[in-house]
Amino acid sequence: MHDSTATPVTVIGLGSMGSALAKALVGAGHPTTVWNRTPERAEPLARAGAQVAATVAEAVAASPLVITCLTDFDQTRAALAPAEGELPGRALVTLNTGSPVGARATAEWAAANRARFLAGAIKNVPAAVGAEDTLLYFGGERSVFDEYQATIRVLGGDTEYLGEEPDLAALYEAAVGAMLLPALMGFFQGAAVIQSRGLKAASMVRFTQKWIDMIRMIVPAFAEQIDHRDYTNASSSVNLFLAAQKLDTELAEETGVDVTWHEPMFDRLRSAAALGYGDQEISAVTEVLRQGHP
Amino acid sequence: MHDSTATPVTVIGLGSMGSALAKALVGAGHPTTVWNRTPERAEPLARAGAQVAATVAEAVAASPLVITCLTDFDQTRAALAPAEGELPGRALVTLNTGSPVGARATAEWAAANRARFLAGAIKNVPAAVGAEDTLLYFGGERSVFDEYQATIRVLGGDTEYLGEEPDLAALYEAAVGAMLLPALMGFFQGAAVIQSRGLKAASMVRFTQKWIDMIRMIVPAFAEQIDHRDYTNASSSVNLFLAAQKLDTELAEETGVDVTWHEPMFDRLRSAAALGYGDQEISAVTEVLRQGHP
Repeated sequence: MHDSTATPVTVIGLGSMGSALAKALVGAGHPTTVWNRTPERAEPLARAGAQVAATVAEAVAASPLVITCLTDFDQTRAALAPAEGELPGRALVTLNTGSPVGARATAEWAAANRARFLAGAIKNVPAAVGAEDTLLYFGGERSVFDEYQATIRVLGGDTEYLGEEPDLAALYEAAVGAMLLPALMGFFQGAAVIQSRGLKAASMVRFTQKWIDMIRMIVPAFAEQIDHRDYTNASSSVNLFLAAQKLDTELAEETGVDVTWHEPMFDRLRSAAALGYGDQEISAVTEVLRQGHP
Repeated sequence: MHDSTATPVTVIGLGSMGSALAKALVGAGHPTTVWNRTPERAEPLARAGAQVAATVAEAVAASPLVITCLTDFDQTRAALAPAEGELPGRALVTLNTGSPVGARATAEWAAANRARFLAGAIKNVPAAVGAEDTLLYFGGERSVFDEYQATIRVLGGDTEYLGEEPDLAALYEAAVGAMLLPALMGFFQGAAVIQSRGLKAASMVRFTQKWIDMIRMIVPAFAEQIDHRDYTNASSSVNLFLAAQKLDTELAEETGVDVTWHEPMFDRLRSAAALGYGDQEISAVTEVLRQGHP
């Protein structure tokens, strides 16, 4: 098959991300068919030039490449169930959050329905769909990735094939995404601290972004320490972070802001210190986390 | 006073950051006097051209500008106690982590000793001292900041005066820094997840850095929502994050990695949902955190 802008594509699931994907494909000249459980979401895309399928089976029948963007893998299989008869020979590409176990179950289900399967993730916000540096990564059938690479690049210029295992994207998604909520909670706490003094949260943004740049710069060294399981080259030790808990408490007393959600983190640091990592790099806490729930 | 490379500077406290500060000042041509409780730490600086003071009082007497880089404000006052007689008329600039209450106590102590006082923070690693984009911010006596700005710029090219209150740098330091440990814990958890599959933590770094770029991009919008206390423009709702807790549990079961340190975060999200913020932006959790310990 020749992958070009003539390749018809179907997009199923028109939330903000699915709509952005479909819009990018229409914009790149692909004959694009869309379907959503609530059809109103398809209206802006119909105006942009997409075909709106009346049923999910019709949507799957319309294109050799079917991209789904639903909430998780359970919902993906449930949404596609009425279209199972149209799946044989289709290339099914999922772009949703979900667990590795959900990705594997969906790969088995796709195989049972004789669809080729590639499970991916898009690591950015809907507004960044189509940008040169927007990253999409995939696990599953290499031939699907290779065959439709040009079409996939319409969604983001930075694509990576992780390997044949269909749950690799979900695994990396979970691993990489684990930073988001904790980091945001820290930012929200900081914003509340700043506001407790009558200052604007916006006044800390520039400083926060510098801090984020610093975190970005140090993660490769942490990964190397973790891969070698050698934390002896300490620039910020476990004990240094533990000593900062006193500041947490003082800050909470002064500002009234809740910092108690940190407690389990400091527990894990104390466990690391008890294992002898106190004077070693903070990345040694990985040794505690990999041991599982204490 | 004329601030130039001829301005003598004293640096007290020669940990990795203090040593980097002193080295930058020597390199820029400032007559630099150093002191450290354990004098061995001064040896590399002596070889670079710094004067090593025999006592802390001698160190304070040597320069109109005295920069301290000790662990916290209590240690700063304790280290300077034998030099109180030399403090009148000196400009004392602290660069350490510490709580706002510690900064205020040190400002009072400096005033009692007739020293001018500026409390700052340097938002980067020792290796970045002197770089054009290394940020230092300060609260306290404006005249000290203005008078010694050129000398301070030797330590980092991006300097900001926050205001007259001597605890402002400590406040911003605490607020901005609140993101660090949670973000790193998330990264370490992700690394353990990746390793549980026999893959290298290094393989996720590129993806993590993309993710960090995304976080960097979204914080200004969160700050605006928090300042307006309007979270209705939701692209990632509280409920969306709450739904992801199921993935957490599945991931822990599959990989054996500890994710239970997330529990208080999800508790705060549930509190936000109970307050009616479920379908609103995740930044609404700030409203829960500002209410203090639940």
